[in-house]
Amino acid sequence: MPPSDDPAVEIVSGDPVAFVRDLKQRSGGDIWLCGGGQLAGQLLPEVDELVVKVNPIVVGSGIPLADRSFDLQHFSLVDATPIGAGVIMLHYTR
Amino acid sequence: MPPSDDPAVEIVSGDPVAFVRDLKQRSGGDIWLCGGGQLAGQLLPEVDELVVKVNPIVVGSGIPLADRSFDLQHFSLVDATPIGAGVIMLHYTR
Repeated sequence: MPPSDDPAVEIVSGDPVAFVRDLKQRSGGDIWLCGGGQLAGQLLPEVDELVVKVNPIVVGSGIPLADRSFDLQHFSLVDATPIGAGVIMLHYTR
Repeated sequence: MPPSDDPAVEIVSGDPVAFVRDLKQRSGGDIWLCGGGQLAGQLLPEVDELVVKVNPIVVGSGIPLADRSFDLQHFSLVDATPIGAGVIMLHYTR
């Protein structure tokens, strides 16, 4: 993948877990992971907060929330908020 | 599987969808499906009401809610109720 034309965007390769661990050591804002199930699966142990929108649809099969081996990751429910159209937003912290 | 010793329990074989469709034509109480993801996957088109308890745990991989091919099944949210220990009970109808 070529470098980004946007100076605010940096494209990185390598281990995403090591990259995020390094980011977390630095000062600055929070880190927002907005990506597919495979990346979320790799980064899940580094996730401190989880926002899940539950749609009123059973899809049968598809991309998992966090694609990884069976490994319980416990969170604490902060709130569950209906946001319209039958969608519930679930907010968790560690 | 041998017949049940309990006269209130009948063990059936064959197509579960045909069996449930036949049950739904008869008079009597509601039908409660309490079973694994594979049975739920087969019977999902016959499900009128859905009760899902969402635990505050990401397991990574495991038994899906309804094990079937990609096929959107739309429901309507009735309510979302916290039932303690970070568990949310989601109740849907068609």
